[in-house]
Amino acid sequence: MRFQDMVQQAAQRNQSLLCVGLDPDPQRIPAQFARERAPLYAFCMAIMEATADLVCAFKPNSAFFEALGAPGFEILQRLAEDAPPDVPLILDAKRGDIGSTAEAYARAAFEQLGYHAVTLNPYLGGDALAPFLRYADRGCIVLCKTSNAGSADFQDLVLATGEPLYMEVARRARDQWNANKNVGLVVGATHPQQLRAIRERCPELLLLLPGIGAQGGDLAAAVAAAVDIAGAGIILSASRSVLYAANGGDALPAARREAMHLRAAINAARGA
Amino acid sequence: MRFQDMVQQAAQRNQSLLCVGLDPDPQRIPAQFARERAPLYAFCMAIMEATADLVCAFKPNSAFFEALGAPGFEILQRLAEDAPPDVPLILDAKRGDIGSTAEAYARAAFEQLGYHAVTLNPYLGGDALAPFLRYADRGCIVLCKTSNAGSADFQDLVLATGEPLYMEVARRARDQWNANKNVGLVVGATHPQQLRAIRERCPELLLLLPGIGAQGGDLAAAVAAAVDIAGAGIILSASRSVLYAANGGDALPAARREAMHLRAAINAARGA
Repeated sequence: MRFQDMVQQAAQRNQSLLCVGLDPDPQRIPAQFARERAPLYAFCMAIMEATADLVCAFKPNSAFFEALGAPGFEILQRLAEDAPPDVPLILDAKRGDIGSTAEAYARAAFEQLGYHAVTLNPYLGGDALAPFLRYADRGCIVLCKTSNAGSADFQDLVLATGEPLYMEVARRARDQWNANKNVGLVVGATHPQQLRAIRERCPELLLLLPGIGAQGGDLAAAVAAAVDIAGAGIILSASRSVLYAANGGDALPAARREAMHLRAAINAARGA
Repeated sequence: MRFQDMVQQAAQRNQSLLCVGLDPDPQRIPAQFARERAPLYAFCMAIMEATADLVCAFKPNSAFFEALGAPGFEILQRLAEDAPPDVPLILDAKRGDIGSTAEAYARAAFEQLGYHAVTLNPYLGGDALAPFLRYADRGCIVLCKTSNAGSADFQDLVLATGEPLYMEVARRARDQWNANKNVGLVVGATHPQQLRAIRERCPELLLLLPGIGAQGGDLAAAVAAAVDIAGAGIILSASRSVLYAANGGDALPAARREAMHLRAAINAARGA
């Protein structure tokens, strides 16, 4: 099944536009998983199982696994194999490289690791994205306007055309990269004004919105700015606020409560 | 020892500004290594040992190892442990991510894998680079104007200031990111004109020039455009043209011959 169809089906089945990001800091693994043979794997699997009926996607963050070396990479692969079925998995890897290297990264993400979608960095241009875009059934979610403060450094620079750089990325995603209807954009939930401008220009692109939860983005404003005419077309991602909701208590019911809370808040904003 | 000092010492000892990039395609491993238990590891180690007295750096390309999954990640780590001493290792990973994720990538590259330098993508802005820049003894080599044709898509866009985007990246590298004197820029050897403009504006930054060899950049023009006033300050990187120089013959003497040829061509261009 195509990535975007998987997202849509999970969103309908679970009445949810929430994505839980898996950014597991080894220093913050709840005590109940510390004695497992692979604590990170056990923690991530448990979080996924506790929230699989509340989300439209999961998003493991490659860096947190790579920081463990080869065992972390193996966990990334095992998570893709063992994850709850019918919930698409986005590999948050922000890859961007040229020619044969981009082909190797695409093979790594989609074939070796077996993920349904990947996040990509556009700085190297369209030919660097092409090896990913060719996988028509996989999602290619391109960084456009990221949630961090430093996103202003380059993404907001005004071009001679009068438009900011991030809008040129959005325009190319819409006009040049989306022949297989498998492209999305990353736009921080921390930027509702830019979200609205991008949605106006790209009414049909899937938007992945990180930055709710721990990063403090205004959820209702982001949803209102970004939903498509069907009240969907967005995935809102929260990571630390779900993973570490328990604050020392029992991680799984706390994660579930936080995911239910975020799902309800998103749905309230969609209805509004 | 600091990365930039390691480069300079290796460059003087070996009279070389050549870097051999390790982009090992599993389909193209020479037959003589195919029966090894870890053919990619054996091939890369043999190439490094065959050329260690001819180069100023080695540059393993993370994607080609990640494409093998966890075993590839382990090879990346073993290469750093077992590589010939006194030749700095650049992890070509083109990372760029925010906050705690960037910290995890920096730990992965510098501590877990143990590399001396890493390539970074600037699209997410200065706060995404900061966790790398803090490692004062490691090199942070930021993509500026990449060697591929698609680099024109965004990097060449003219800003309202009248300057291209890549020059704004170079300016920030010079003025904002280089407090620890550990920053360099990636500029494709395929772009001598842009190389000259960047060198004029950034007389003291280390420039990493991929694109000689298989990518066909004009070596002499690139060297003439990019050397600093001391006739150095650049690293020219070739990968496939060295790794696969034998064309079915004996890989190691052929790689060595090609490295000697490139080193001599670079030195001739420096002298010219």
